[in-house]
Amino acid sequence: MIFAVITDSKLLTAIAAVTGGDGVLTGAAATAHYRDWRGRYQGDALAVVFPSDTQQVSAVVQLCAANNISIVPQGGNTSLCGGSVPLAGGTPQIVLNLSRMNRIRNVDAVNYTMTVEAGCILASLYAAPEQADRLFPLGLTAIAPHCEIGGNLSTNAGGINVLRYGTARNLVLGLEVVLPDGRIWDGLRRLRKDNSGYDLKQLFIGAEGTLGIITAAVVKLFPLPKAVATACIAVRDPAAAVALLSHLRAICGDTINAFELISRSCLDLVFKHIGDTQEPFAVQHEWIVITQLANVLPAPLDAALREALVSFGADVTDFALTTDKIEAERWWKLRKNIAEAQKAEGISIKHDISVPVSRVAEFLNQASTELRDTYPGIRIVAFGHMGDGNIHYNISMLDAALNQAFIQQREHEVNRIVYEVVRELEGSIAAEHGVGQMKREEITHYKSELEMELMRSVKRTFDPHGLMNPGKVI
Amino acid sequence: MIFAVITDSKLLTAIAAVTGGDGVLTGAAATAHYRDWRGRYQGDALAVVFPSDTQQVSAVVQLCAANNISIVPQGGNTSLCGGSVPLAGGTPQIVLNLSRMNRIRNVDAVNYTMTVEAGCILASLYAAPEQADRLFPLGLTAIAPHCEIGGNLSTNAGGINVLRYGTARNLVLGLEVVLPDGRIWDGLRRLRKDNSGYDLKQLFIGAEGTLGIITAAVVKLFPLPKAVATACIAVRDPAAAVALLSHLRAICGDTINAFELISRSCLDLVFKHIGDTQEPFAVQHEWIVITQLANVLPAPLDAALREALVSFGADVTDFALTTDKIEAERWWKLRKNIAEAQKAEGISIKHDISVPVSRVAEFLNQASTELRDTYPGIRIVAFGHMGDGNIHYNISMLDAALNQAFIQQREHEVNRIVYEVVRELEGSIAAEHGVGQMKREEITHYKSELEMELMRSVKRTFDPHGLMNPGKVI
Repeated sequence: MIFAVITDSKLLTAIAAVTGGDGVLTGAAATAHYRDWRGRYQGDALAVVFPSDTQQVSAVVQLCAANNISIVPQGGNTSLCGGSVPLAGGTPQIVLNLSRMNRIRNVDAVNYTMTVEAGCILASLYAAPEQADRLFPLGLTAIAPHCEIGGNLSTNAGGINVLRYGTARNLVLGLEVVLPDGRIWDGLRRLRKDNSGYDLKQLFIGAEGTLGIITAAVVKLFPLPKAVATACIAVRDPAAAVALLSHLRAICGDTINAFELISRSCLDLVFKHIGDTQEPFAVQHEWIVITQLANVLPAPLDAALREALVSFGADVTDFALTTDKIEAERWWKLRKNIAEAQKAEGISIKHDISVPVSRVAEFLNQASTELRDTYPGIRIVAFGHMGDGNIHYNISMLDAALNQAFIQQREHEVNRIVYEVVRELEGSIAAEHGVGQMKREEITHYKSELEMELMRSVKRTFDPHGLMNPGKVI
Repeated sequence: MIFAVITDSKLLTAIAAVTGGDGVLTGAAATAHYRDWRGRYQGDALAVVFPSDTQQVSAVVQLCAANNISIVPQGGNTSLCGGSVPLAGGTPQIVLNLSRMNRIRNVDAVNYTMTVEAGCILASLYAAPEQADRLFPLGLTAIAPHCEIGGNLSTNAGGINVLRYGTARNLVLGLEVVLPDGRIWDGLRRLRKDNSGYDLKQLFIGAEGTLGIITAAVVKLFPLPKAVATACIAVRDPAAAVALLSHLRAICGDTINAFELISRSCLDLVFKHIGDTQEPFAVQHEWIVITQLANVLPAPLDAALREALVSFGADVTDFALTTDKIEAERWWKLRKNIAEAQKAEGISIKHDISVPVSRVAEFLNQASTELRDTYPGIRIVAFGHMGDGNIHYNISMLDAALNQAFIQQREHEVNRIVYEVVRELEGSIAAEHGVGQMKREEITHYKSELEMELMRSVKRTFDPHGLMNPGKVI
């Protein structure tokens, strides 16, 4: 053991020689990096290391590989699945934090691309394109001031604009990756078409740092919309919301940026815990939708939207629309504060699932029927990106006194009920938050043995010694 | 050798027991399947096999794997790189043709998806979505009546609508794949968000059948556009075209479907060889652009387009626009017949390259300067998908008497000049036609050794015995 300590200490000294002394944190100063932001996962590591450029990442990884030390790549550490923190009591490992690599290397307005380093905070990536009349459309409103683009790409992040622009994967043209042996793969292409061999970048996107470390990326930019219209819509039930989205897309086309479904329980929590919020309509409705349309052409979006809503019929029970940003923000405030309001109310059993968009109503109906039959007195908080078939579906006991025990005793059963409905509807139990530590064992029940075998063979091929983000995904 | 023949014969008998006797062609009846459609590549095989469903594909592949027989997956056999025909004198192999698997399994208008089998002819995939007011946007106008969707996905096909809808890869939500050992991977998901592990389907898309056989896919549908405007535009030079595209996207946004650049030499060939074609303008111009805008919202597209063209300034030297389909088709006829007109004129040294959109003019200028300096008397036929930075760049001798010898003697040198300019501009030597046999050796000069090593390790992982489409890509 003394030998091991000496070896670790020598390793950290060697790493500090690469990054500079202030690039290596140990002891109490480092512990915040071993814990996820919600305080659910607490691990430990030898140190957290902050390289400043790709060469430093490469050198640090080489040192670790030579000494059989594992690496947990970390960005803004906003993972909801424990993907960006070390396991407790695992193999000897370091946290490799990319936050110092935060340069925008290039904005090419004519090519509609931007080259960014992994440690750029997402919220910092909107202004530079905007100055060039361009849009970077990855919209994770709640965490954008904290999360980093390397993490967004490593988890194939989603958010509210996927309906129009796709997930993070769809926004990537090129990647720079440090491989598990420390070599740098320069795949930083800025091309719209390239079929000169296997598209290797796809392997690293969404791999949660288990195959290599994304250090930089070329992302797509889009024309900056000039006109925006927002509607708050009361619908009879989720089935009406599903049909309405299909109808709106057929009439308003690719101008639909977002289509978010919110249940009454979410609204009640927001009104209770978040100041300066109010019912959007004079009457209380069980389900509302907030949708946003945006267009580059100065078309009369609000007129088109109004016409589409009126023509839909009686299943839209009420609606209001606006082109005013401040008025729209009042509605968005209801959506954006659901997570915060839930937190204030207490803990819950959370799910991040997806089904085909056409089956969202079936999911909500089946899951809630089974859960309410099994557990009288539960609260179901259902909301999310209905436009992508992605529902955040959280369960707790209405009676706060019973909640802690319910969650402790029933979490596994509740997961089973929810995930079996997802399986039946051909959905995914990990839609946009990824797998991390949280669902690593869970996915083995919902993916075929063959798929797990293929995943393991990919892992072995790229990371034969299992040093990259151990205990995550696979 | 007699033993081998008996073995092969037994194998074919076993395969016929799977597919039915009419599912195995040998001898003269099969030779058309061993030759590419342009007659450039002629190989040989034991037979061409036509399975009718995924189970049959699986059984045939198992039989081949057990007998160490290689497999060349084939769709419509429209590859321009020899990707879908067997090598001559290679290892014992069969051609596995997917054309009998031609069912549309499902159109889900509400989910905006369609599930199709690999052997569906591309042109057959437009009507069913259209009847449901949906668009399948993969646009390969010249070969759509012949090519098949399995081949389109295996080559990550491009075409004229990539600017708006992305390449084939971007249109896929799920895949069904028969692996090299015959097992069936069911990844036929219809989800917009799924981050429950590595995105395995990405490996098979664009792999040209070297990692497995795509047997079915879930593809995205889009709202069907209702308004279309088309413009034919004379621009001062390619640099003006590059700037114009950037300007148009900023003003007209995501309504731009296509932006095609055509040089004078292309137009001259079309007027010479294709009937019922004429100059689009009273004056001859060196470079023209055809662009198409389409919108779901009934916005006044032509007015917006006119305003954008007028506001661009003097580098647009002339333009005409229309919302009339027949008038637009007269311009498209010029673009769509370039390949045909070229063929009538004689052979040429062809390139399918891409560079960042912002560098297309540099490519055209540098390549043409170097080529004209080196080979006086050459004709450069340059055209293509400028909106994707993808130029088809073909070289021949103006004097037909010199052409054959020029091509025989200089093809390698010409490739070197063109590809070195591509390398300097950080482009790709294989943009949308893939690698196949044609560029298998060539890509090794333009990709890093590390990238080739990673590609080889992926190939070994998925196809350890090297049975899938040998001699292609890698």
